[in-house]
Amino acid sequence: MNLRHFTKAEILDLETLYRRNLMNTLIGFKNANLVATKSKDGTENLAIFNSLVHIGANPPHIGFVMRPTTVERHTYDNIHETGYYTFNHVHTSFVEKAHQTSAKYPRNVSEFEACGFTPLYQNDFFAPYVQESHIQVGMKFVEEIFIKTNEVYLIIGEVQEFFVQEDCIRPDGFIDLAKAGTAVVSGLDGYYEACEIARFSYARPNQAIQKIF
Amino acid sequence: MNLRHFTKAEILDLETLYRRNLMNTLIGFKNANLVATKSKDGTENLAIFNSLVHIGANPPHIGFVMRPTTVERHTYDNIHETGYYTFNHVHTSFVEKAHQTSAKYPRNVSEFEACGFTPLYQNDFFAPYVQESHIQVGMKFVEEIFIKTNEVYLIIGEVQEFFVQEDCIRPDGFIDLAKAGTAVVSGLDGYYEACEIARFSYARPNQAIQKIF
Repeated sequence: MNLRHFTKAEILDLETLYRRNLMNTLIGFKNANLVATKSKDGTENLAIFNSLVHIGANPPHIGFVMRPTTVERHTYDNIHETGYYTFNHVHTSFVEKAHQTSAKYPRNVSEFEACGFTPLYQNDFFAPYVQESHIQVGMKFVEEIFIKTNEVYLIIGEVQEFFVQEDCIRPDGFIDLAKAGTAVVSGLDGYYEACEIARFSYARPNQAIQKIF
Repeated sequence: MNLRHFTKAEILDLETLYRRNLMNTLIGFKNANLVATKSKDGTENLAIFNSLVHIGANPPHIGFVMRPTTVERHTYDNIHETGYYTFNHVHTSFVEKAHQTSAKYPRNVSEFEACGFTPLYQNDFFAPYVQESHIQVGMKFVEEIFIKTNEVYLIIGEVQEFFVQEDCIRPDGFIDLAKAGTAVVSGLDGYYEACEIARFSYARPNQAIQKIF
């Protein structure tokens, strides 16, 4: 197996897009979520993110990394203005439409309309959900952490409520994302389908792990 | 499509393991990396993490979330003691062995040996790489951010060098993770293989996106 070696100096010397592709694929596969918001004046916004990270189950906190100097500006502003947003899984059946939300639309254009998604308001939650998604999470902003070395923010929020396709929840709470058709992302533009290999039992020293179902 | 609704109060009321499974699968699919370290006294440590997040390409920074009150303690201590660690992709061919590294081994036991991995030292880098992995990243600690609501740390490091299976790098720098056999994770214990659907061109308003290869 031939491995290619890159030094830090070589990384910094690469052409920008090449470096961006390389660095964005280097961490491994990523999730795919549409973040939906609404401004105070009622304009809806929808943008794809693949940087969600589990922060903790109690309190139920989810983080995501954003770069508000880019197309992510409208999402950032709406979260700050209103305090609410939703995560909506991207499914394999609509990855192309979901990717289209990354285009730089003007502020007065709703990506729901421009890209063919349906805003769904439920239980008086301020931010819209995406009706086409079968895993929808209602979030309330908690805090942001500025990472000054790269001028990005880690946005942390608390889950207020969520909706999950009922037949995808296994008896122990595990959501069967392959059955739900949730997409996997690599880099800036690669979309994948996931096929389950196995779930494994809790690992203990000197004890063989079992497959669980 | 029947969706089940969970409120925040219901989430907090759930049995702990059920809530943990639910909350860990709710964000979508995750990456799978073995983090390898070595203590000052020379004991190697290896542990699986699925919380890596891209921070930026220039400087080349990668973050990951860790909970140092658990089995992750040894990894955390070694990073602090020495400043160096490596990320090594988990491939579908060894997900079971990789999962076994999550067991709580005593500090003087190397998970390399206990779980059947081979430490590899390259270019005088202090921390070991995992020879079985074909995507290996050498990291230097930059900063940690404590997220006090959940008592977790976001550890940010700078890529010092990396190694990638040569025939998996496409002409534009995109690493073909499916070809490399990099695994996908869901929740605490679900392992998946990824099958490519498509890569899409850069999205622009009012312009159809193309598949790229």
